[in-house]
Amino acid sequence: MSASTSSTLPLTRDSVLIAQRAVEPHVRRTPIFTSTSLSGSLPGKNTLYFKAENLQKGGAFKFRGASFSLSQLTRDELAKGVCTHSSGNHAGALALAARERGVKCYVVMPNDSSRPKIEAVRSYGAEITFCEPTANARAATLASVQAHTGATFIPPYDAVNTILGQGTALLELLDQAPEPLAAVIAPVGGGGLLAGTALASDGTHVRVFGAEPAGADDCAQGLKEGKRRDDVQASTIADGLRTPVGQLNFPIIQQKVEKVIVVSDEEIIAAMRLMWERLKLIVEPSGAVAFAAVRSPEFQALGIIGPIGIIISGGNIDLSKSLPWIDEMQ
Amino acid sequence: MSASTSSTLPLTRDSVLIAQRAVEPHVRRTPIFTSTSLSGSLPGKNTLYFKAENLQKGGAFKFRGASFSLSQLTRDELAKGVCTHSSGNHAGALALAARERGVKCYVVMPNDSSRPKIEAVRSYGAEITFCEPTANARAATLASVQAHTGATFIPPYDAVNTILGQGTALLELLDQAPEPLAAVIAPVGGGGLLAGTALASDGTHVRVFGAEPAGADDCAQGLKEGKRRDDVQASTIADGLRTPVGQLNFPIIQQKVEKVIVVSDEEIIAAMRLMWERLKLIVEPSGAVAFAAVRSPEFQALGIIGPIGIIISGGNIDLSKSLPWIDEMQ
Repeated sequence: MSASTSSTLPLTRDSVLIAQRAVEPHVRRTPIFTSTSLSGSLPGKNTLYFKAENLQKGGAFKFRGASFSLSQLTRDELAKGVCTHSSGNHAGALALAARERGVKCYVVMPNDSSRPKIEAVRSYGAEITFCEPTANARAATLASVQAHTGATFIPPYDAVNTILGQGTALLELLDQAPEPLAAVIAPVGGGGLLAGTALASDGTHVRVFGAEPAGADDCAQGLKEGKRRDDVQASTIADGLRTPVGQLNFPIIQQKVEKVIVVSDEEIIAAMRLMWERLKLIVEPSGAVAFAAVRSPEFQALGIIGPIGIIISGGNIDLSKSLPWIDEMQ
Repeated sequence: MSASTSSTLPLTRDSVLIAQRAVEPHVRRTPIFTSTSLSGSLPGKNTLYFKAENLQKGGAFKFRGASFSLSQLTRDELAKGVCTHSSGNHAGALALAARERGVKCYVVMPNDSSRPKIEAVRSYGAEITFCEPTANARAATLASVQAHTGATFIPPYDAVNTILGQGTALLELLDQAPEPLAAVIAPVGGGGLLAGTALASDGTHVRVFGAEPAGADDCAQGLKEGKRRDDVQASTIADGLRTPVGQLNFPIIQQKVEKVIVVSDEEIIAAMRLMWERLKLIVEPSGAVAFAAVRSPEFQALGIIGPIGIIISGGNIDLSKSLPWIDEMQ
C-alpha cells in the first residue's frame, strides 16, 4: 500500500501557497464569521474570527487536501483512479473531489460505519468496499483494491500533499480577516489540518495552537513526552479526532505549534451548542473543539492580545439522532 | 399608539435603494449559498441561490427594517428611544439595532413568551414590559410605555420604513448572485419581507413569489378573494409567520407578487432538515418555508427556467427542544 510519490514539494509555507493556487478553482472560499456576543463573553475579549470549513464542499476542510492531492497526480494516475480508507470526512471529500474531475474513486469502509456516512460517500459516486472494523482488515482490503485497480492511495492526513492542501484554509482566513491575527487555533486528530496551518503561518507572526479532546489526547501527551504516541485508546464525542497524530504531522506540530490545549467532551458540547445558537451554523463535535479550547481557562490564561482565528473543521453530523446537550438533560 | 411619521418615502424600488445606502454600514452583508445536491434534486434543476438572512445580526432579516427605521428618526426621537411589541425576531432586531446606536429600546412581550426569546431581547439591552397574551393588552401596554417614555413605535411589518428596509436583502442577493435570477421567493407572515422584496424587484425582470404555511395562509386566501384577511386562526410550526399580512403590505403583494405558494408543516419540516443537512445552516421553520415552496409540485409545475433566489428569513430556534423531525419519529 503506497501513497502517491509524484510530488516532491517541501513542507514549507511556499508549498502551501503553491497548493492554494492549485486548489483555488476547485474549493469553496468559505466565509468567515465574527460574533460580538461570543467574542465579548470571554475574559480576553479578543475578536474571534471563525473560518467556516463546515461550509466547505463535502462539509469539511478535508476537501482541500483531497483536491490538492488530486491536482498533483499524473494523467496516467488519474486514469486509474484514487482510493482511500476512511469512515469519515476524508472519504466523502475525496469522492466528491474525484467526481468533479471525472476520476474514479474507491473507498474502503469498516462495515460498522454509520448509514449517513455510507450514503454520503455513495452519493458522491465512489465505489465502496466494506471490511471488518480492524486496522489489519482495512490495510489488507485497501491493498487488494489497489492491486485490482491500480488506483493511487490518497491518505487522510499523513502525506505531504494532504498537509499542504489543508494549510490553504489559514491562507484564506488571513486574507479574509480585516485585521492581522494574533493567533490561530485548529483541532488535531491525525494532524493534517494543524500541521498545514502551522506551515501556512510560518513568518506571519501568527501564534499557532492546537485543540484536542481529552478522550483522544495522544498529540498533547506526545508533545509532553517528546515522542509521538500511537497507543492512546480514543473515547470522545469528537469522532473526527479519534485518530492518532501522523508520523509526518507530529514533528511539524512539535516544531511550530506553541501548545495543544486539551478539552473535555462537556466543554466540546457546550462550545458546539453556543456555535449553533449564536453563529447559526451546523458544527460537528470535532468542529467545536478549537472554540472549546479558546474558552478554556488554560487558553485564556495565556493573555493573548488581539484577534484570534478559529478553524471550524466540519459540520457533518447525524441529524436523525438527538442533539448531544439534549441527551445530557435526559 | 402612533408609528414614526418622519419618513415620507414612496413605496418604490428607488426608496429601497435609499434604504440600502442607509443600512449598509450597519447590517451584515450575509453570504449566499448554492448546493449542487439541492439544486440537482428538483425536477426543474434550477440553480438555487440561498440568501442566508439567518446569519444576519440578531439571526433574522428583521435587523434590516429595524436598522432603516432607526436611521430615519430625528435626533429628538432617538433621544427618547424606540419601542415595539413582539414575541419574536423583530423585538430582538430592534433591541440590537438600537443598542448599536446607543438608543434606548422598550419591548412589550406577552408573559407566555419563551425563555430564549425573552433572554435574547434582554441580552441586547432592551427594557421589557410583560403583558397578558392578548391583542388588547398588548396595545394598551405599548400605549402606556409610549406615554411614559415618549419612545417612537417601530412596527414589525406594517410600516413604510420597515418594508423598505426588508427589501434590501433582495438588492444584496441580486448583486451577489453571479448570474441574473429568473425568480425569487420569500416567506410571508406580516408581509414586510415579501412586500419589500417585491418593491426591490421592480423593473428587474425577476419574478417574485411568496411562500406561506398552510396553517396561516391568510395572504394566499386574501389574494384569491381579492381582499385582505385578518381573521385566519394560525396554527403552524412556522412561528414567525403566524401574523396576518399587514394593511400596507397586502396591496403591494397583490400588485407585484405573481403567486403565494402554500406548504404544509410536513413540507416545511422536510425542507428545514434538508437545509440543516446540506447547507450546514441553522434555519428556523419560518426560514425553510420558501425552500419548501420551491420543492412543491405547484411551484415546479410553473416550469421556471433559470436561477432562483430563496430568502432564508431567520435561524432563531429553541435548541433546548428536540428537533422537529425527531419528534415526528417518536
